[in-house]
Order: sequence, then structure tokens, then C-alpha cells
Amino acid sequence: MSKLPSSKDKPLFTPGPLTTSQTVKLAMLRDLGSRDIEFIQIAREIRNELLSIAGLSQEQGFECVLMQGAGTFGVEAVMSCAVPRDGKWLIVSNGAYGQRMKKIAEVHGVDYTIIESPEDQPNSAEQVDQALSDDPTISAVAIVHCETTTGIMNPIEAVGQIVRKHDKTYFVDSMSAFGAVPFDFEACQIDFLVSSANKCIEGVPGFSFCLARRSRLEQTATWSRTLSLDLYDQWQGLEKNGQFRYTPPTHAMLAFRQAIEELKIEGGVAGRQKRYQANCETLLAGMRKLGFQEYLQPELQGYIISSFLYPESDNFDFDLFYNKLNDKGFVIYPGKVSNANCFRIGSVGRINTADVEALLSAIEVVLREMHVDLAMCNTA
Amino acid sequence: MSKLPSSKDKPLFTPGPLTTSQTVKLAMLRDLGSRDIEFIQIAREIRNELLSIAGLSQEQGFECVLMQGAGTFGVEAVMSCAVPRDGKWLIVSNGAYGQRMKKIAEVHGVDYTIIESPEDQPNSAEQVDQALSDDPTISAVAIVHCETTTGIMNPIEAVGQIVRKHDKTYFVDSMSAFGAVPFDFEACQIDFLVSSANKCIEGVPGFSFCLARRSRLEQTATWSRTLSLDLYDQWQGLEKNGQFRYTPPTHAMLAFRQAIEELKIEGGVAGRQKRYQANCETLLAGMRKLGFQEYLQPELQGYIISSFLYPESDNFDFDLFYNKLNDKGFVIYPGKVSNANCFRIGSVGRINTADVEALLSAIEVVLREMHVDLAMCNTA
Repeated sequence: MSKLPSSKDKPLFTPGPLTTSQTVKLAMLRDLGSRDIEFIQIAREIRNELLSIAGLSQEQGFECVLMQGAGTFGVEAVMSCAVPRDGKWLIVSNGAYGQRMKKIAEVHGVDYTIIESPEDQPNSAEQVDQALSDDPTISAVAIVHCETTTGIMNPIEAVGQIVRKHDKTYFVDSMSAFGAVPFDFEACQIDFLVSSANKCIEGVPGFSFCLARRSRLEQTATWSRTLSLDLYDQWQGLEKNGQFRYTPPTHAMLAFRQAIEELKIEGGVAGRQKRYQANCETLLAGMRKLGFQEYLQPELQGYIISSFLYPESDNFDFDLFYNKLNDKGFVIYPGKVSNANCFRIGSVGRINTADVEALLSAIEVVLREMHVDLAMCNTA
Repeated sequence: MSKLPSSKDKPLFTPGPLTTSQTVKLAMLRDLGSRDIEFIQIAREIRNELLSIAGLSQEQGFECVLMQGAGTFGVEAVMSCAVPRDGKWLIVSNGAYGQRMKKIAEVHGVDYTIIESPEDQPNSAEQVDQALSDDPTISAVAIVHCETTTGIMNPIEAVGQIVRKHDKTYFVDSMSAFGAVPFDFEACQIDFLVSSANKCIEGVPGFSFCLARRSRLEQTATWSRTLSLDLYDQWQGLEKNGQFRYTPPTHAMLAFRQAIEELKIEGGVAGRQKRYQANCETLLAGMRKLGFQEYLQPELQGYIISSFLYPESDNFDFDLFYNKLNDKGFVIYPGKVSNANCFRIGSVGRINTADVEALLSAIEVVLREMHVDLAMCNTA
């Protein structure tokens, strides 16, 4: 606290909020009226652009609903709106974000059943098929695209085709993937998808967004269990006069519009994917060279965030490791896996391979300072 | 849309989001990790400062809980958390924000009773006394401090003393007043108070905050009806490790810390009150001189926002009036009163009497352009 502040912010190797560009932040140096013409146009533009990033449009029968708050608010909006009072969710989980869906169903008193896979295994479409065959009372299926707990990618297309075969509603929490992981929305048969402003689009936190199949969204008119998170009502508000029902985060919206512009400049989803993949490849190669082991099998590992096992050395202490990296100007992220000691490093946000290489050098120095010899650990 | 953008933003004469200082916005040009040490310190600082603005402290038994989303999210958090499953709200309403509380109770299936006063009359402590005497099953009372529908100020202290006499929980929605209207939290006997970052503290939108009596807050541990808006769980998260449970609006928080600093520089609540009062007095004097009539009796009119009746002239059209003012660089606000045609002008945010005078001059010109002769209207 008594230290002089740094001349620049530390790059964030986290799952979000992420490092954003200076131009994205500069877009916030304005105060717009939330019911004023200019802001209404911005909200409309953002909604259309988000559909377009997903390869969708209103003409094709899709809608974009913006929802204030953290990403979890968007997930809770769908979980508490997309099934009727006597509906039932099938939650497909292999990590903390699947478990959070379960918690949401519980607090709202919505009936649910859950398929829990180990955290190092992807969800299984066969199990979903079986569960839907066994229990015809299930109305909707919820899955996490990139499970941020580990970084594992789940088979949203295979599961989506099963869900469609059984004619159920399909919800994909694509929080950490949307904008940087290409997928075919229609082939995946998605009805509701949620992501957040401060993830791969590289905006600042303040709202989440839901891409919804209009025919499904229209069914939910009376299904909401809250006022603030009422997806249908929020959509109707935005459609009626272009306005949010309740105060929108005007500055975060301005930043987001700029972030979308910069996503386009980078070449859209494919361009962003390329940079994030390069970041992740640099990270994994460097960490392996230092002697770290990944939690996931390489073929299951996405390029969004990676979990690394604590080294088996008595000298390794994660808090010390974290703080030493922080002092050197790098922010990493604690682990969330339930059955192993891990930490996480993100490859996303406005960072590039040079940032990753600087992080790797800092990690090497910190390990030396902590007297952790990874070559020794691994031969032991 | 084809017009060149203005060199500066239009001053906002709205109830919020408001015009903020340039330094408040500049504070957002940083990316902090949401689980990082520096951000945790900022969250703690903001929570303590908010208690201090209310003349409270943790030592005195009060807590501050920050909640992502719009102000309504904070109101819904209290309404859906502060009474048990078999609890009952008494809602004291004289405008749209009291009606919103009713809507929240309804969607959550929480029992309630409501005292509805006309929109141009303050709430009555006697009626609250009577209602609490008549119905001992009521567990909590909810009231709006400054009803933004009209700008009327409600007697939160008189009502609070009645609520305490009956030993019920007391919730004040002080969205539009907190930070600019001095009041004695303890004399008002408040248990839960909610306001928002983008109101009189002059931050940007992104979160609301709840000041809570700890003994009441502790009772609510199992009462929440949602995950995202679980006040107790959010508080426990912040207490446990200083972190939000779900991604916080880091940039809005940075702006808010700067906004608190600037509130102090202005002389705290009393200093801000003085500026807003001067703005409002200038506004009312000027509007009266132009021939406008206020919706409220002068003695009921607060200094936050004022409702003006549409002039009785065939030539007056609010949309045209609004757009013409907008073209001249001033953003006013539509009305919300249910039984009269009004528009509203706010006296809050980083504006001063010179801004109000410029607005008044613009209004005079617009009236002339619209061929609305107010002197004629009023003699007619």
C-alpha cells in the first residue's frame, strides 16, 4: 500500500475480467442518458452485432437480450425463466459451473436431474440420450461449453443433436468460449446461449447477454421467477422502445461496442481464436519445459484457460508463488478443481505471446527464488 | 446518425445515469483482476466509505453489501431476502417505485399488503401505524425515500419510528436520495437501505449497495429466493476473502472510489446537498418564470428531480420538445406520473447552476420555436 503504483496495469492471465485494450477503456469517457436516442442506437447495434458474431439474425428467428450484472446473472436468468413452473432441467456437469446451475435450480425450487462427470472428463452425449429416454418429464438441458474450472471443452454439438432429437429446450453456458471458439449455432441446435461482456469479446464487466431462439423465448412469457432476471420481459422492453427496463451499465456498453469493433478488426472469431491458440501453445510449451504438469489430457484441453498441478515439492506454496508473480507484475488465478491442487493460467484477453513469454520467464525466476526444482520433482 | 458527433457530451438532467466528472471516468482506464489484492482493497475501502457516508460503521453493527446490476437488482435482493418464506411485506407506495416493490413481492410469491397514497401526497406514518396494528403477521415494511416518479420526499424517519415501535424490519429504497439528502440512519431505525452507484454519489452504473443492520442481515441466512441476489451469501463472500462471489464490475468500482473521494472534497452529503439545492432552486425559479407549473406542491418537492405539467397548448408536443432540446445539447426525462401529463428535470449529477441556466435558455428558445406561449396558456 505504501508502494508507488506501477506505471501500467499487470496483464491478467485469468478467466475474466480480462485485460482490455486501451481504446476499449477510452470509449468509457462519456456519459450517455440511458433513455436517450444515441444510447438506444448503441444498444440496438450491440444486440445485432452479437447475433451476427454467432452467425444469426432476427430474420432467422433469433433474439439477443442484454442483462445487467455478472455472467452468473445471465445463467440464472435462463435457468429461472426457460422452464415452466412444473418443468424440469437436466444439468450436464463436469465442474463448478455445472454445479452452480444445480444450485440455481435448487434455490428456485425448479425440479432437476444432473449427470455428473469427473472434472477431467468431457460430458457424454450418450448419457444425455439415456437420461432423456429414461425421464420424459425433463423439459430442458443445460450444459457448460468451456468449463472454466479446468478449461475442458464439452461436446455441445453432439449433445445438442441429442437434445433436438428428444425435442427439448437446449441451454449452453458459453461464458468463457463465445467470441473465440467457432461453432455452428444452428448445427448445435441451441435455444439459449449466455456469455458475458468481459470474456472473449474483451469488453469490461457489467452485463451478460443471451442469444435466444425466438420461438423458445416467446414460450417463457410467464415463466420467470424474478423481476430483474426476467428474460422475456427484458426482451420485450428492449423491443418496445430499445430501452432497458432498469438502468443499464452505459459505460460498459460503450466499451463493448468498441470491443466488438476490435474483434472485427482482428478477423472475427477465427482471428481471435488464432491469437488465443498461439498464447495457449506458448504457455503449454513453456510450462512443460519448466516441468509443470497439466491437469487435463492434452486432447481435452481448450485454449481458453489451463489448469496446472501444484509441483510436488515441499517448497511450493501457492500463495507465495501467486504473490511473488504479482510483485513481478503478473496476475494468475487460483485453481477450482475439487480433487486436485491446481492453479490456472488464462490465454485470453488483450494479451499476446510476448506477454506469455514474459510470464514464463517470471515463473522460472520465482521457482528459483522459492527453491522449487521441477526437474527433481518429476524424477522423484 | 450522419451528423458529426459533438465535442462534448450533453449534460444529463435525468434521475440517472447522471453526468459524472471527467476524473471519475478517467479512473476506469485500468484493468484490475477481480480476485487480486489491489481490487480486494478497493472493495473493502468502498464498503467502509459507504457506511461512513451514512454515519455508520461495522463496530456499530452495520454492514455494506455491494450487488452487481441496476438499482432494482438491489431492491429485489432485499425484497426477496429480508423476510422468511412465510413472511409478509407492508409496502408503502406513492409512485412507480413503490409499485415495483409490489411487483417484486408478487413474482417471488411473497405475501404482502400495500398502502397506496396518491402520487402527489407523501406516505403517512399514521397509516403505517394502523396497518401494523391491524395485521400482526406483517414482518417488514418497505418505503421509497425520494419517489423518483415525482420527486416527492417521504417521511422515512416518522415511518421508521412506527416500524420500530412494532418491532418490524424496515427497508428504505433511498436510490435517488442517498449521498445528497442528510438523514440520521439510527433515528430512522433503518435495517436495510439500498442505493446505486450512478445516483447522488455520482459514479457510473454497474452496481447497487445495501447498508444493513448486521443483526437483521444475519437472520436472512436461509431466506434468499435466488442465487445472484442472495444478500447474505454476497455479504459472507465479501467478508470471507474480500471478493465478490461472481464477477464484479471492476471499472465501475474504480470510478466509484474516485466519486467518493470527490464527494468528500465537496464537503460530503451537506456539500452535495447545497449544490443540488442551488440547481433545483435555479430550475424552479426559471421554469416558473417561463410559465411552467409543477406537479407537486412546493413544500413536498425535494431537490433531486422535479415534475412539470405539460403546458395546456395545442402546439406543445413532448417528443418534439425533447428532441429539440436534445438537438441543442440538453437531455431531459419523460414523466412517469400515472394521472397527469408531466416531464421531469433532474438537478443531480455533476451539473451546476450555470448548466441549469443554459437549459432554461434552451427551453425558452424551444418554446418559441414551437409557438407555445405559456403566459397565454396560464391566463386561459
